[in-house]
Amino acid sequence: MPVPDASRPSVVTGGAGAIGSVVVRALLGRGHEVRVIDNLSGGRRERLPSGPGAPRLALTVADLREPSAWAEAFRGAGEVWHLAANPDIRLGTRDPRIDLDHGTVATFHVLEAARRFDVPRILYASSSVVYGLPDVFPTPESYGPLLPQSQYGASKLAAEGLCSAFAHSYGLRAFVFRFSNIIGPGMNHGVIFDFVAKLRGDPSRLEVLGDGRQAKSYVWVDDCVAAMLLAGDRADAPVNLYNIGNDDRTSVREIAERVVRALGGRARVEYTGGARGWAGDIPVQLLATERIRGLGWAPSLTSSQAVDRAIEVVIAETRR
Amino acid sequence: MPVPDASRPSVVTGGAGAIGSVVVRALLGRGHEVRVIDNLSGGRRERLPSGPGAPRLALTVADLREPSAWAEAFRGAGEVWHLAANPDIRLGTRDPRIDLDHGTVATFHVLEAARRFDVPRILYASSSVVYGLPDVFPTPESYGPLLPQSQYGASKLAAEGLCSAFAHSYGLRAFVFRFSNIIGPGMNHGVIFDFVAKLRGDPSRLEVLGDGRQAKSYVWVDDCVAAMLLAGDRADAPVNLYNIGNDDRTSVREIAERVVRALGGRARVEYTGGARGWAGDIPVQLLATERIRGLGWAPSLTSSQAVDRAIEVVIAETRR
Repeated sequence: MPVPDASRPSVVTGGAGAIGSVVVRALLGRGHEVRVIDNLSGGRRERLPSGPGAPRLALTVADLREPSAWAEAFRGAGEVWHLAANPDIRLGTRDPRIDLDHGTVATFHVLEAARRFDVPRILYASSSVVYGLPDVFPTPESYGPLLPQSQYGASKLAAEGLCSAFAHSYGLRAFVFRFSNIIGPGMNHGVIFDFVAKLRGDPSRLEVLGDGRQAKSYVWVDDCVAAMLLAGDRADAPVNLYNIGNDDRTSVREIAERVVRALGGRARVEYTGGARGWAGDIPVQLLATERIRGLGWAPSLTSSQAVDRAIEVVIAETRR
Repeated sequence: MPVPDASRPSVVTGGAGAIGSVVVRALLGRGHEVRVIDNLSGGRRERLPSGPGAPRLALTVADLREPSAWAEAFRGAGEVWHLAANPDIRLGTRDPRIDLDHGTVATFHVLEAARRFDVPRILYASSSVVYGLPDVFPTPESYGPLLPQSQYGASKLAAEGLCSAFAHSYGLRAFVFRFSNIIGPGMNHGVIFDFVAKLRGDPSRLEVLGDGRQAKSYVWVDDCVAAMLLAGDRADAPVNLYNIGNDDRTSVREIAERVVRALGGRARVEYTGGARGWAGDIPVQLLATERIRGLGWAPSLTSSQAVDRAIEVVIAETRR
């Protein structure tokens, strides 16, 4: 009986984030009481449903590095969705301690709290960056060796290992999702957000880091959350590992051109050159998705469609 | 020119341990100045060469969790051999914080010290436990997914990821070795040590956890250190990943019978049953070693021979 028990509360770390807040709404829609833990560094209180319609939602504003401030939220919970992390891969290169503390150590604390309060399931948002620079495309979940290029990638790999160890040592069920690029409302970083912000600053030109040929698969946030819910309903191994990606890719060059067009089409696009946008960037990414599709997942938007919608949304959200 | 520069000191963490002390002797033999950092929890001062013959060896007794106590040892060093870890996998199941602190976080501090003092190379002792329960034998370095069964395994995987991230972000060269079971003088844990200790306590019977069919590949410590030195001399990628194992396996049953025979042959062997000796144990292990053999490595002892020699050594070392 793998289907989660809606009579028990769900904990969502990072629940005020762009992905987390979609998870929160989905869980409330399924009848769960939801307890969000968020330090509001990237998360925003306004993303959470409020008012008389949201009586079954509680927010604990706390840093995951301090379990005493939030662990009580795990009491009686049926599952924890662990989505909190440093969202900016580039930040970790400047200060490698950020991903260790907010990724690896924070995940350890989350798992320890789950163990302490007998929370039987964890759903963890990992990332395709654990694959490093793979030489197989589309990249399957069984790909190895896993040699991450960034501190962020190292923290995602470390957290996957912790989920696995806790699952095998203490009987917890772990669901580990390796995300491609998840896009949707409320983004405040990433290539689409950056391009729109740059053009708002200088509408005459758009500087693009790299040669623009970096091509990745983008997934609309609702499709991503649907995949996680589906796996949580249907899979029941000690560790359930799923790539989440689209089967088409969108290049940085295409994104740049579409953003320019959407903002009036007058800007000149300039490429700084080189295969990578920045140290630690993964220039090419395409995930094998047979596993999650085998459960019945069918995304509503392709990568190309998701990018178009995200451009519209970012433009609308950043309009003054 | 990948060969390490013998004119620069080598740092060895865990250098007073059973493997570390063999590394230290090998490096002294190559003309290196050697700086050992060891908290002497498992390590022993007596294992290090002493007296007038060892002027080029310095020991810092310190815990890796406190970088201020040892980081100066990295100044001017040409490489760091990072061997320190919690050696007892079972301990981590009782207290999962041990492997996080002494494995993952300690490795982070070692890498940060290497970055701070421009130490260009790290040689890291990882383990075959990162493979979890693989379904491919012999298991190649490219095997995935990596789902460790124990906190120890999670910390080894996390440390590998950190080595990779630091190598790709900051230009360090990383050598990552996935050890099978390394045996030799000075062991104070592991199946051979445990069996001898049990029979010293009660010579009439030997209780064996599991069904005795767990079968692993054992490597004599000198062969292991020779493999690491060889890879350090000949490989030069950002991350150089090598399994270290023998091509034959030795079962727990064989080890039990040989230990009984070596101690007089009177004990009755009793099996507790079950495929695993203990939670987190890996019942079957055989590593693909084409990569390290391709560099010219040829171990002097098979697994079976290494086990026989280790039994002799443990019996001699534990004789009253």
